[in-house]
Amino acid sequence: MKHRANERVTALDLGPEAKPTPAIKAYFAKCEEKLGFVPNVLRAYAFDNSKLQAFIDMVDDLMLADSGLSKLEREMIAVAVSAVNHCHYCLTAHGAAVRQRGKDPELGELIAQNYRAADLDRRQKAMLDFAVKLTETPDKIDESDREVLRKAGFSDRDMWDIAAVVGFYNMSNRIASATDMRPNKEYHGMART
Amino acid sequence: MKHRANERVTALDLGPEAKPTPAIKAYFAKCEEKLGFVPNVLRAYAFDNSKLQAFIDMVDDLMLADSGLSKLEREMIAVAVSAVNHCHYCLTAHGAAVRQRGKDPELGELIAQNYRAADLDRRQKAMLDFAVKLTETPDKIDESDREVLRKAGFSDRDMWDIAAVVGFYNMSNRIASATDMRPNKEYHGMART
Amino acid sequence: MKHRANERVTALDLGPEAKPTPAIKAYFAKCEEKLGFVPNVLRAYAFDNSKLQAFIDMVDDLMLADSGLSKLEREMIAVAVSAVNHCHYCLTAHGAAVRQRGKDPELGELIAQNYRAADLDRRQKAMLDFAVKLTETPDKIDESDREVLRKAGFSDRDMWDIAAVVGFYNMSNRIASATDMRPNKEYHGMART
Amino acid sequence: MKHRANERVTALDLGPEAKPTPAIKAYFAKCEEKLGFVPNVLRAYAFDNSKLQAFIDMVDDLMLADSGLSKLEREMIAVAVSAVNHCHYCLTAHGAAVRQRGKDPELGELIAQNYRAADLDRRQKAMLDFAVKLTETPDKIDESDREVLRKAGFSDRDMWDIAAVVGFYNMSNRIASATDMRPNKEYHGMART
Amino acid sequence: MKHRANERVTALDLGPEAKPTPAIKAYFAKCEEKLGFVPNVLRAYAFDNSKLQAFIDMVDDLMLADSGLSKLEREMIAVAVSAVNHCHYCLTAHGAAVRQRGKDPELGELIAQNYRAADLDRRQKAMLDFAVKLTETPDKIDESDREVLRKAGFSDRDMWDIAAVVGFYNMSNRIASATDMRPNKEYHGMART
Amino acid sequence: MKHRANERVTALDLGPEAKPTPAIKAYFAKCEEKLGFVPNVLRAYAFDNSKLQAFIDMVDDLMLADSGLSKLEREMIAVAVSAVNHCHYCLTAHGAAVRQRGKDPELGELIAQNYRAADLDRRQKAMLDFAVKLTETPDKIDESDREVLRKAGFSDRDMWDIAAVVGFYNMSNRIASATDMRPNKEYHGMART
Repeated sequence: MKHRANERVTALDLGPEAKPTPAIKAYFAKCEEKLGFVPNVLRAYAFDNSKLQAFIDMVDDLMLADSGLSKLEREMIAVAVSAVNHCHYCLTAHGAAVRQRGKDPELGELIAQNYRAADLDRRQKAMLDFAVKLTETPDKIDESDREVLRKAGFSDRDMWDIAAVVGFYNMSNRIASATDMRPNKEYHGMART
Repeated sequence: MKHRANERVTALDLGPEAKPTPAIKAYFAKCEEKLGFVPNVLRAYAFDNSKLQAFIDMVDDLMLADSGLSKLEREMIAVAVSAVNHCHYCLTAHGAAVRQRGKDPELGELIAQNYRAADLDRRQKAMLDFAVKLTETPDKIDESDREVLRKAGFSDRDMWDIAAVVGFYNMSNRIASATDMRPNKEYHGMART
Repeated sequence: MKHRANERVTALDLGPEAKPTPAIKAYFAKCEEKLGFVPNVLRAYAFDNSKLQAFIDMVDDLMLADSGLSKLEREMIAVAVSAVNHCHYCLTAHGAAVRQRGKDPELGELIAQNYRAADLDRRQKAMLDFAVKLTETPDKIDESDREVLRKAGFSDRDMWDIAAVVGFYNMSNRIASATDMRPNKEYHGMART
Repeated sequence: MKHRANERVTALDLGPEAKPTPAIKAYFAKCEEKLGFVPNVLRAYAFDNSKLQAFIDMVDDLMLADSGLSKLEREMIAVAVSAVNHCHYCLTAHGAAVRQRGKDPELGELIAQNYRAADLDRRQKAMLDFAVKLTETPDKIDESDREVLRKAGFSDRDMWDIAAVVGFYNMSNRIASATDMRPNKEYHGMART
Repeated sequence: MKHRANERVTALDLGPEAKPTPAIKAYFAKCEEKLGFVPNVLRAYAFDNSKLQAFIDMVDDLMLADSGLSKLEREMIAVAVSAVNHCHYCLTAHGAAVRQRGKDPELGELIAQNYRAADLDRRQKAMLDFAVKLTETPDKIDESDREVLRKAGFSDRDMWDIAAVVGFYNMSNRIASATDMRPNKEYHGMART
Repeated sequence: MKHRANERVTALDLGPEAKPTPAIKAYFAKCEEKLGFVPNVLRAYAFDNSKLQAFIDMVDDLMLADSGLSKLEREMIAVAVSAVNHCHYCLTAHGAAVRQRGKDPELGELIAQNYRAADLDRRQKAMLDFAVKLTETPDKIDESDREVLRKAGFSDRDMWDIAAVVGFYNMSNRIASATDMRPNKEYHGMART
């Protein structure tokens, strides 16, 4: 078995990184400080500052802004969606995030393997059932699916956030797969114990 | 057959629109001027300015920034992806855009029905074949698929843009389906002749 | 983008049209009078009078004979089935028919995009749910599916008609796709306003 | 295990058979003479003479008229399509026909189980590959699929006949499944040795 | 149509049969006595006595040991699973077994075609519904599926046996398909009347 | 999030473990010595010594006997198959085995996520492509698939072993999913660094 010697973070040659704006410089510094590295997905976008900033703005709003969904729940959705799509990058990066936010070394892997095997409460089971149906057969979602979420305790505002996170990882999974995006090695060992 | 009497643009009650920032106000004014209306997807996001601005920044970069793909080609991808996902909102809005940008009243519908029935050249056929495979089975994309695109004349930078547009509409389609988002009536009649 | 210069109505060279029988001549004249043209599907079959007559007899019985289903409902089934099968010919021709019979310029497109986004009453929702399941997974239909139709108000005779129309368009969609059948240009503009 | 005591040939109550026209009477008499019984699919349609006659005219043209496909080949398509759709009625009736026309007691079952396990020549393999793709994913057929058929020796006229037979059994399979149509018991023992 | 002249029981050249152990010799003798022949699946494994013995031990325990499932029910599962997987070998061999054990010449074929068309009681319907879901989408099985089995009268021990038989034929079907395994001709005529 | 408090290794109540035979006692002792624990799949089978012994005999032959496939390659197949089937138990246990046998802490996870993202050589890529096709669509395997394996350097004997391992994990995945089998906690931390 050969390993990736390639220094590029995707299979594509997208040219050099753009000269970062001050905002991007500051953001990368914050990543270094918090995570110890800049996630490769940001490096992948770095050939163009506008694209990179738009991506950062959207992902930060989705994953970190106030919401009826906890940050762990949003990461659980990211992983459950990525499991359907078998996305190496996102399973690695967000699997680590679920391990970390859940303070539970096994939970990230369990969701990455099959959330149906996890002992989830009704709310989180309904949330991931919806996320997986919306991923697999978006055309088949109808009012009855929204009713299930409402009965599990989600508000309409929460449902928007579920939809937006599911949508976002269906986007990211496809960009990562299309470009063979490679996660930072550091994720592998994070929050294992 | 009943028709939608509902004034809301989705099935969700997301509360009132936020007081728009000057940037959003200006953007909406530009929509009114160019299109004659503010697209309902923007109204749907308008309950939260940060989410709305992030969405605008990303979609404008993807669909309007410089690219090796023409604006028509990016709209064709939007429609081909939305056809796989049977997304009412996106087929209506971007079907109109293909009719308009292609200066061809039938082309939007043809792509919305089945792009394989259109007499596309090799480049555009390869582009939409990739878009549909990435939509249906993102986990099965590999180097051989990228090779087909390269042989059809796409650069690595173009391939990023294809991936990003495919990804984006896989996101939008799911947000629209999850929330039962309804397109502005005006799209229906646009660029029909 | 090239357009079809080809005068043939399919990708196949099936030889010249047969000398029409008086019945076929009269039928074509009626088409010209009512629609303004002879539908290309009939031109496609015209190389053989027996095949053409058998097709005409079946489609006229199904779509025009007395039935517990309205003519509009039968066209709605045609379009919903053709949407699953992404059939360019049938979506174009029967999309126009739904627009016309429904006296509703948007309805044809809505059903062609995703009938789940239309505000259908329970009866028509059940009818199209059955049509789509029978199209996608005919082997999984069982008594419980028939029970849903009965509860939505359909008689056993109506259920036969639903099954027959669903079956017929699953046939036509496949003949059209296999032969790359091309709809008359006139359909595009019909009943748009 | 209970067996069907029911005398009806479908799960639907379609009322009494119509008084047969002389043509239908003669046709039923010919069935009795040739097969020893009237196929239940004809009994199922017999509540309405127009529907029955249209069905007879189409099936007889397809399966018995002059064609570049042998009658056995047309039955093989019927069975291969019905195998994809798991149609009890059609597998029973047309399985018997393949056993009989092929003068080969095992061939009908083999095609019903999986035609890929049969030692078919290139022509028949290509024919059934096309039939199955057209059944499973009609929207994905394109010129390259027609090219394979041409290279395997089929003319454009033959390709029409393949498409028409594939289409027809995709119709019949769905009508049979939707109505739980039950084959005559006599088929079971036909041409077994 | 050519027929298989090949004497090998699979498409693979696995070398000569190993010198049989006394246990295997005795087992083959018992097959000859009971069935009149040694099933080809055993011949296929006979290049290696350990593999053959392990296969025999597992299949005999599953299909013949004491169980809350009757031997006929276990054969019905084998056939229903093999129908989903379109496995020529297993449909032939276990179709014969269902015909024989059920003392019903039509039942084997009916299950092989589509068990939903058989008049099964609630217990057997639930058993085969579970078998087919576990075959098609093993990742989607959850507690609600086990509840349906419990309500249909199965004990937890019975459910293990259902799972084990479903699993086993999902294995055998794949080994048979991967190697193009060919059933003994004798099965075809067994228990037809 | 609740965690499994349950001491049972599956969702089923299968009664107490049988009094182990000396062979099973010795086998369990060897597990304790080598792994530090008895794998839960063996505990699950322990209610019946015959079933347990048959399972042990088969799995040991498949995974440990002489073969043209390395032990690591057989574990890679186990994981690639289990990834398609989203099997929590097998991904956990065999993911650990790939990490351990490959002496590569990331490889197990990579194969569990999507083997297409691993830098495999042609032989192992062909092996896993075949394994996944045989898992997803066993009915579509034909001689051309075997030819690809031969060209990648596999002998017919190797192909048997590939088929047998693929088959076996398609069995185990389904037994584990059907019974909600839970892996030993120890696997999680094994061979992580």
